[in-house]
Amino acid sequence: MKIAIAQINPIIGDFNYNFNRIKQFAEQALAHAYDLVVFSELVVPGYPPRDLLENREFVEANLACLDKLVDCIHGIGVICGYVANNPADDGIPLFNSAALFEDGKILYQVNKRLLPTYDVFDESRYFEPGQQCSTYSYKGHKIGLTICEDVWTDRELFKRIRYHMDPVELLVNDGADILINTSASPFHVGKIAFRWNMHAAIAKKYQIPFIFANQVGGNDSVLFDGNSAAYDPHGNIVAQARDFEEDLIVFDLKNVSGDMRPTAQSDTQSILNALVMGTRDYVTKCGFSKVVVGLSGGIDSAVTVSIAVRALGKQNVSTVFMPSKYTSKNNFEDTQMLAENLDIDYEIIPIDGMFQEFLTYLSPDFKEDDPGITEQNIQARIRGTILMGISNREGRLVLSTGNKSELAVGYCTLYGDMNGGLAVISDVPKTVVYDIAYLLNAEKEIIPARILQKAPSAELKPGQEDQDDLPAYDILDSILKGYIEDLKGIDELVAMGFERKLVEDIISRIHRNEHKRHQAAPGLKVTSKAFGYGRRYPLAQRYVPNSFAAPNQKKSDKSA
Amino acid sequence: MKIAIAQINPIIGDFNYNFNRIKQFAEQALAHAYDLVVFSELVVPGYPPRDLLENREFVEANLACLDKLVDCIHGIGVICGYVANNPADDGIPLFNSAALFEDGKILYQVNKRLLPTYDVFDESRYFEPGQQCSTYSYKGHKIGLTICEDVWTDRELFKRIRYHMDPVELLVNDGADILINTSASPFHVGKIAFRWNMHAAIAKKYQIPFIFANQVGGNDSVLFDGNSAAYDPHGNIVAQARDFEEDLIVFDLKNVSGDMRPTAQSDTQSILNALVMGTRDYVTKCGFSKVVVGLSGGIDSAVTVSIAVRALGKQNVSTVFMPSKYTSKNNFEDTQMLAENLDIDYEIIPIDGMFQEFLTYLSPDFKEDDPGITEQNIQARIRGTILMGISNREGRLVLSTGNKSELAVGYCTLYGDMNGGLAVISDVPKTVVYDIAYLLNAEKEIIPARILQKAPSAELKPGQEDQDDLPAYDILDSILKGYIEDLKGIDELVAMGFERKLVEDIISRIHRNEHKRHQAAPGLKVTSKAFGYGRRYPLAQRYVPNSFAAPNQKKSDKSA
Repeated sequence: MKIAIAQINPIIGDFNYNFNRIKQFAEQALAHAYDLVVFSELVVPGYPPRDLLENREFVEANLACLDKLVDCIHGIGVICGYVANNPADDGIPLFNSAALFEDGKILYQVNKRLLPTYDVFDESRYFEPGQQCSTYSYKGHKIGLTICEDVWTDRELFKRIRYHMDPVELLVNDGADILINTSASPFHVGKIAFRWNMHAAIAKKYQIPFIFANQVGGNDSVLFDGNSAAYDPHGNIVAQARDFEEDLIVFDLKNVSGDMRPTAQSDTQSILNALVMGTRDYVTKCGFSKVVVGLSGGIDSAVTVSIAVRALGKQNVSTVFMPSKYTSKNNFEDTQMLAENLDIDYEIIPIDGMFQEFLTYLSPDFKEDDPGITEQNIQARIRGTILMGISNREGRLVLSTGNKSELAVGYCTLYGDMNGGLAVISDVPKTVVYDIAYLLNAEKEIIPARILQKAPSAELKPGQEDQDDLPAYDILDSILKGYIEDLKGIDELVAMGFERKLVEDIISRIHRNEHKRHQAAPGLKVTSKAFGYGRRYPLAQRYVPNSFAAPNQKKSDKSA
Repeated sequence: MKIAIAQINPIIGDFNYNFNRIKQFAEQALAHAYDLVVFSELVVPGYPPRDLLENREFVEANLACLDKLVDCIHGIGVICGYVANNPADDGIPLFNSAALFEDGKILYQVNKRLLPTYDVFDESRYFEPGQQCSTYSYKGHKIGLTICEDVWTDRELFKRIRYHMDPVELLVNDGADILINTSASPFHVGKIAFRWNMHAAIAKKYQIPFIFANQVGGNDSVLFDGNSAAYDPHGNIVAQARDFEEDLIVFDLKNVSGDMRPTAQSDTQSILNALVMGTRDYVTKCGFSKVVVGLSGGIDSAVTVSIAVRALGKQNVSTVFMPSKYTSKNNFEDTQMLAENLDIDYEIIPIDGMFQEFLTYLSPDFKEDDPGITEQNIQARIRGTILMGISNREGRLVLSTGNKSELAVGYCTLYGDMNGGLAVISDVPKTVVYDIAYLLNAEKEIIPARILQKAPSAELKPGQEDQDDLPAYDILDSILKGYIEDLKGIDELVAMGFERKLVEDIISRIHRNEHKRHQAAPGLKVTSKAFGYGRRYPLAQRYVPNSFAAPNQKKSDKSA
């Protein structure tokens, strides 16, 4: 049996587009005389549809789309993810399902058993967990069909499993001789290798081939890397799809071999690919083609605009430089050179006249050589308003340029430099922004060398440097990763070698600035924990770690 | 047995504050020689703690706080909600729990069985469902202890139950002679009466007394109305706590009677009380005391500032009027009179100079009598920047003034009039804003009559009125309620008597403006479905209702 993996990039809710895309890929697989083609999880509506699932007409359209696919595609088996109704009288009304259909008939249907409800995932909000774990006999094979999280149950890889069932084990016990996993598994740094190991371990443990068909493309913050693959019973990868692009590959079950595509060779390359794909998909799926980026002369805006050019083409990217009396001469030169290197539009709008008008009313006693927080923020908000003015005037989406380190500690202005439809690098720590810049410059210098060398500055007052207010970025980023991604406590961070006072100060800054991030543009998620949808903190709260004096005697449950 | 209900307003994560508040109320109950005092769900950490629960130190502090309460409160039984560890090796690591303790010992502990995971609730993200449903014998009674959602299982009230267990039935079968429900059940219009009916039905069905101990206070968007109560075995309310305030009431099980407090007598009064409480709690729990509101001369800002004065006192509220060349003379007079009626600070900052500076660069060919969307938004963003300037200069939280109807259809400017720390009336439909205004004026005219009579206008171009762009607000609000709150489809809305073209246009506007709401300030939830945390739509999506042509033959599951 020859099994094709169709790794496509659906558009959420665009049933006509998704129908055509699925049909095209199925026809391509049919043209090669493959026996079966496997699409990703919820490929019919696109993943994640979120609260569109509460709309009955949306669910009905998804079922109609599946019906039409069943009607239209003949001569090949198709596995395809969709939303099914739960016929029971109680429980949650929908299932996250996959159907195997062929020649006008649905032969087999499974409901996802393990529903991720953590980080960016809300599946228990929408779906009833499936219970059935029996295989299906198809063309002489017993297929064990799972949906994404159904296979995330390896007790050697996870300290703790959130579920009480192991669908893989049950399917193998039911005689499965091939495991197929249809997924919408998003990217973050380290995830690709983790997934490979996990899938390989399953194939090896049960000594059967394992097929992973993943979604590709960006949907808001969540970036799907593709990287669909097939594994032999020893856990070796024997078929591998492209990363961050659509693809159709085949895995021949008889010869235990398949197509092998090249993929990114470093984490930095994967992040860059993810950001380019995520920017392109967000802009175009939202119905835009053109963007505008405010250039400052710093590395963040340089990297953001370079990503935009890769994502959308130089003809669709324009820039504006908005100097004030605090802007250094170097930044005039560096922004212009960057725009020339990228061959993109470049406009200069000085902000001093507007700044002066605001000061007249808000800060009449203002001393030019010592702007406070009020006067600094006014400058950032004038720039934000100019960017939105260009957006309105020209129908361009604004890409904001803040990085994760700044956003974490609130080193950014709400309604100012945070303005934008998409925050391209808001999940990229400052140290990684440099890595990406060097990679962008690898073939030829795009970002002028001086931008990589200068000390980061917001240039909102004379002689200002980020490091006046913040620790060195390598230290800051390590503490941020420890606290935000690895959920380490203060004591653990101190044990790692960081000063307690510094750790406490940074954690306090993180929590004091939740309100800014609450109103931030969506950002592209590339780490295991991004600000935004997958990190949900209360705003009106007063938690201060280690501030409650515990009694000596423990009465309550301290186990586990 | 005399059972006190302690209806307190905890601060999320402030374990010292919550400890003291719980201790004070328990001591007050003890002073009255009551036998048992019941606090609300998760009263120790405050509800909802959200992702603070992923922080080990936070959970440990909550356990230490419970321990200390157990140590410190003697002579009375206490039921108190907290977060417990799940000692099992797999499953989700925490429980949403309640303990009954007395004289230094935890006597009994239950874990919440039914975990709401819809709208603003994410409990399956954090908690393992409890399984145990046995009663506890205490002072001659068999107590059936439930936590909030555990009792939301009435098959006559709900078309569909999301769960597969009925804890109330199981507890009654285990011999319960009193049901106690410790809750954090938030407010929305209609909820109070719904809850009364539901609780009364349970008492009546099983013919046993029912006690409901609810949280009170605002936590971000979510407003808890209190309204704790006790019901006799016939379903009559025999004890009733205050609404929107802390309270301690008693229910005497022997006499089947208790304290009865007066509560709001109309929906409009409840909404107003909720907004006042929510504004006070958000501002003060975030560490602010003072606010600033931009006045326009329209009804939205008039209602918002009146709520702010009730919430925070007139000395803590200041206002700014920011006229342009498009501002009518009436609005100069009306804003000033409003500020005088409220006896609050009032500043005038004209925006024409700043507007002119922006136009010089962004729109040099601008015709004064016909501002387009670019020029209109610049005006709104200048005002937003001024408000934030005052916020920075004076340490005041900005209250934004947009209503739900505007926010739904995008009749608002991102980074302009949407600026603010809290959107006080962003879940109040325009028609209800008028109801509140009349109620605010009931005793004496606070909001000048002309503000109630004039046609709503954004005054961003000459002669502009909301109704140029939008249908009449009573029609708009009905369609919005049908689509957003009641999840009706287009065909259902048309069947209600609305024009198809109008319905499609409004729905299209709702979805086109998701990106604005994504970056909106938190708003106070007063309807069954508010924008924000409890309504999660993808931004990059292209769903158009009824746009997919369904095939004639149905293959997929159409049941239920």
